[in-house]
Amino acid sequence: MAEWVEIVKGLKGVVLDICGVLYDSGEGGGVPIPGSIEAVKRIKSSGLKLRFCTNETQATREKFVCKLQRLGFDISIDEVFAPAPAVCRILNDRGLRPHLLVHDDVIPEFDGIEKSSPNCVVLGDAADNFSYRNLNEAFNVLISLENPVLFALGRGRYYKETDGLKLDVGVYMKALEYACDIEAEVVGKPAKMFFMSALADMGIEPQQAIMIGDDLVNDVGGAQQCGMKALQVRTGKYSSLPVMEL
Amino acid sequence: MAEWVEIVKGLKGVVLDICGVLYDSGEGGGVPIPGSIEAVKRIKSSGLKLRFCTNETQATREKFVCKLQRLGFDISIDEVFAPAPAVCRILNDRGLRPHLLVHDDVIPEFDGIEKSSPNCVVLGDAADNFSYRNLNEAFNVLISLENPVLFALGRGRYYKETDGLKLDVGVYMKALEYACDIEAEVVGKPAKMFFMSALADMGIEPQQAIMIGDDLVNDVGGAQQCGMKALQVRTGKYSSLPVMEL
Repeated sequence: MAEWVEIVKGLKGVVLDICGVLYDSGEGGGVPIPGSIEAVKRIKSSGLKLRFCTNETQATREKFVCKLQRLGFDISIDEVFAPAPAVCRILNDRGLRPHLLVHDDVIPEFDGIEKSSPNCVVLGDAADNFSYRNLNEAFNVLISLENPVLFALGRGRYYKETDGLKLDVGVYMKALEYACDIEAEVVGKPAKMFFMSALADMGIEPQQAIMIGDDLVNDVGGAQQCGMKALQVRTGKYSSLPVMEL
Repeated sequence: MAEWVEIVKGLKGVVLDICGVLYDSGEGGGVPIPGSIEAVKRIKSSGLKLRFCTNETQATREKFVCKLQRLGFDISIDEVFAPAPAVCRILNDRGLRPHLLVHDDVIPEFDGIEKSSPNCVVLGDAADNFSYRNLNEAFNVLISLENPVLFALGRGRYYKETDGLKLDVGVYMKALEYACDIEAEVVGKPAKMFFMSALADMGIEPQQAIMIGDDLVNDVGGAQQCGMKALQVRTGKYSSLPVMEL
């Protein structure tokens, strides 16, 4: 209790994970987690700054935010940090042309990016697009490059949907890393740069912010490595695994 | 040259890899590699013992051998060591009931094995069966077990088919290992037990045998760790990668 008083005293901002914290994704757009719509309202009215850091790559940021608004959340596009816009900036900066292995619905994020004669691979949470044919295609692009560059939009193991646990992008990242004997560059949580851009946007220091998420490695661990405080909620993937250490 | 004289002097048996050494697999059954049909004949007529160690799991051993015979090879079922019959012996010994993520054509090898209420997963070279749905299914079986047991029928990265490089079972093994934070038990090359069973069948010692394969890790490395001599051919996956260290 005394510890909490200490944490809250210096707090100026909150960073929220979305999937598994605000809502459970799944067929029909998913469902809000009880109390979460109200919690977002209370944080905003408290005077604390608020940003959302998600590794969601199954939709453009615009569509994703619209969905959350429809579910009842007080959220706007510029409050949301997502890996697809972040990797587009990196691709532009480094003059890289991606082969995309991503979800169909996130492809519009890459509209302005040159994709001919690819010299890298961008791997998102492609879900059903993670077919053997598509994995082989991405592998053959990588293996043909002198210096294979693989970007992974997150490194999560799995997430919870309304009908059960689903494999996340990190699993396929590991698959291609092993196939090509390379190490991927992770864009999104738990990469330090990703948290830092949200903090910079709020204009606060790491120790003035708390990250709230359901993933011990990508949310809590990533934020702590930046010097942020962090809290794991017992919803999302946490709630479906009473025994296992994530 | 002097070294070769030394190697050949003590030699009593040869272990051959099949895919990439005797033939390249692919549509229509694949094609023999020039000189390989004759090489098998010459080894057999030389008086050397001969066995075939393959990680092939896209067909039953019976069908696989029939295909090779049709291609012109002098080969019989009891000369061939393959992972599916080997894992079936392990499953029986340990009373395990597998969930299978394998190629449709290898399923008959598991006919005598109890598969209800699975308490382990067997992963073969499932090719197009490596869908997101099937991976999720295998993952959910593993994650629901108190002690998840995953058998991988080989740990290869990729192999060459007539129309290009294809991802192998090891890549999906790494994916599920990462998803569940476990380590798979490999049945097939480069597991020591697999080579030893071929040597026992020939009745010779490791140092009296040479392994010939196109994979530096699974064929050459595996055999050397058993004390066998080993030779990497420049066909199969080797030939398609002039630059890369496998």
